[in-house]
Amino acid sequence: MTAELGQRLRQGDRRALARAITWCESTLPEHRNEAESLLSELLPFSGGAHRVALTGPPGAGKSTLVDALGAAILALGGRVAVLAVDPSSPVTGGSLLGDAIRMPRLAASDQVFLRSSSNAGMAGGVGRGTREAICLCEAAGFDWVVIETVGVGQAEHAVAELCDTLVAVTLAGGGDEIQGMKRGLFELCDAVVVGKADGAFEAAALAHAHELRGAFALLRPERPPYVSELSAKSGRGVEQLRNWLSERYAALRASGELVQRRARQLVLAFEAATSSELLLHSARDPRTTELLPRLEAQVAAGELLPTAAARQLVRALFDARS
Amino acid sequence: MTAELGQRLRQGDRRALARAITWCESTLPEHRNEAESLLSELLPFSGGAHRVALTGPPGAGKSTLVDALGAAILALGGRVAVLAVDPSSPVTGGSLLGDAIRMPRLAASDQVFLRSSSNAGMAGGVGRGTREAICLCEAAGFDWVVIETVGVGQAEHAVAELCDTLVAVTLAGGGDEIQGMKRGLFELCDAVVVGKADGAFEAAALAHAHELRGAFALLRPERPPYVSELSAKSGRGVEQLRNWLSERYAALRASGELVQRRARQLVLAFEAATSSELLLHSARDPRTTELLPRLEAQVAAGELLPTAAARQLVRALFDARS
Repeated sequence: MTAELGQRLRQGDRRALARAITWCESTLPEHRNEAESLLSELLPFSGGAHRVALTGPPGAGKSTLVDALGAAILALGGRVAVLAVDPSSPVTGGSLLGDAIRMPRLAASDQVFLRSSSNAGMAGGVGRGTREAICLCEAAGFDWVVIETVGVGQAEHAVAELCDTLVAVTLAGGGDEIQGMKRGLFELCDAVVVGKADGAFEAAALAHAHELRGAFALLRPERPPYVSELSAKSGRGVEQLRNWLSERYAALRASGELVQRRARQLVLAFEAATSSELLLHSARDPRTTELLPRLEAQVAAGELLPTAAARQLVRALFDARS
Repeated sequence: MTAELGQRLRQGDRRALARAITWCESTLPEHRNEAESLLSELLPFSGGAHRVALTGPPGAGKSTLVDALGAAILALGGRVAVLAVDPSSPVTGGSLLGDAIRMPRLAASDQVFLRSSSNAGMAGGVGRGTREAICLCEAAGFDWVVIETVGVGQAEHAVAELCDTLVAVTLAGGGDEIQGMKRGLFELCDAVVVGKADGAFEAAALAHAHELRGAFALLRPERPPYVSELSAKSGRGVEQLRNWLSERYAALRASGELVQRRARQLVLAFEAATSSELLLHSARDPRTTELLPRLEAQVAAGELLPTAAARQLVRALFDARS
C-alpha cells in the first residue's frame, strides 16, 4: 500500500499527496509507521523545491499575497504547493471552500497543491508535521513550497528552522506592541514586504518601506534583507518579489549555503525527535519504575523542584551504569 | 549569599526579589546553581498567591487593564506582583520608564512589584523562568501574581499551565484571523473580558460580550467562563472582575481544585525538565560517542529521517542494557 501510494505521489497525484500528509500528521501509531516507511522511501526524491515561508501578524494580508505570488510563479511554469499552518485552529485537513476564497487564483489551478493544517500542540504551530509535508511535496515534484503562518512570539523561530527563505509580511503603522513583536522577526527574516501598498495606504506603505531600509542599513549592514512595498490588489512588487526569490534560491544553491542551512535544520529536528524518544523510553525503563512515581509525587506536592527531580531521575538512568 | 538574599526576599525586599529572578532567568551554570539552591530553600514558602494570567492579542489593552485591576486590588490592601512576559522582546530585566508609562498606578505603589521578561527561546515565551519567578514572588509575600502575555498560537497553552486563572482580553470586532486565534484561547480561559467598553466603542463592546455569553452557553454549557465588558478608562467592570477573581480563588482553594491543578502543572514542568536533562546526558554518554556524530551526519546529508535516527540513538542507550 505504501509503495503504491508513493508511486502515485511521485507522479504528482495531489490526492495521494494529501493522503500521505494526513498520515504524517496522525498521532495513531499504525499511521505513523506507514508515514515513516513512506518518508524513508521518498527521502532521496526530496529537497528539490525552494522552501519559502511567509509570516506576519493577523490581518497583514498573507493569504492574498500568497495567491498573487503563486500566480506569478505559475505564469513562469512553476508548480506551487502551499502549506497554510494555523497554530490555533482545531481544524485539520483544510477546507476547499476556505481555500477558494482565500486564494482564488491558486485554488483554480491544477499545478497547485493547497493544504491547511492546524499542527496544534507543536510550538508555534509548525514542526515535525510541516517538515515532513514539505518533503512529500518535493517528492511530488513541486518546485516551490510556500509555508504561510501567523508569525508571533516563537513561531517565527520554528518556521525559520523549516525554510530556505523567510519573508516577513507587515503593514505600515501598528501600535507599540505590534512594533515589539516585529523585532524578533526582523532579526531572522530574509525579506520584508510592506503589504497593501495601494489606494489610501500607498503613501504610508512607501514611507514605511523606506524607513525599514534605513533601519536595516543601520542594524544589519552586512546582510540587509530585501525590503519592498507590495500590493496584491494592483500587482505592484509581486513579480519583483518572485524574481528576487528565484535569484536568491539560485545563489543559495550555487554557494553551497542551501545545503548547509538544511543540514543544520535537520540536525535540530533530530534533536527534537531524540528528546521525544528519550522521554518515552525513560518512563518505560525498569530503573524508573519505582523512582518516577515517587519523584512525581514529591514534585506534585511542592516538596521538590521539577528541575531537581529531573536531575535525580536522569542520574538514576545514566550514572548507575558508568 | 543565597541565605542572605533569601532572607531579604522573605521580608518582601523588592530588590532582592528582582535579583533572584535575574538568577533564575540566567543561563550561566553558576547562576543556575545559586537559583536552584535559593528556590529549594524558598519552596515551602511559595504557593500563597492567586496566579492570574491575562492574555490576548496585541493592542487589546492588557497593560491598561492590569494597571486598573492592580489598583482595585491595592484598594483592598493586597500586594501585587506583575510579570509581563514579552515572547519576542530581546530586552530582559524590564524598563522602569516603560513600566511607569504602561502601568502608572502600579508603578507608583510600594506594594507592587513589576517585572518585564523576554524569556526568548521558550515556547510561547513562558516557561521555567516564569514558573520560578511566580514562586519567588509568593515567597516575598505577594498575594496576587498577575502574568501579562501576548496570547497567540501556543502561548495560551503555555500560560494556562502556569496560572490558577486564565483571563482572555479581547476587543469587539477584529478580522477572521483574529477570530480564529481566539478559538484556542476560548477553550482554555476561565474569564473573557471585552476591553475598551467606553465612548464610541461602548455599544459594540456590550454587544460582543452578549454574543460571547450566548456562544459559551451553547459551547461550554457545563462550565461557561466569566464574561464581562470592561473599561480601564472609566473603571467599568474592574471592581467586579477583582471580586469575581477573589471569589474564584476562594472556591478553588475550598474545593481542593487549586491543589490538583497546581500538582498537574508541576508534573508537566517535571516532564519538560526531564526532557532537557535527558538530552544533555545522552549526548555525553560513552555509548553515543561514536554513534551520535554518525547519525547526525546521515541526518544532515538527508540520508536518514530525523525520527528514525532518534530511535536508533535511544535504542543504543536503553536496549543494550536490558
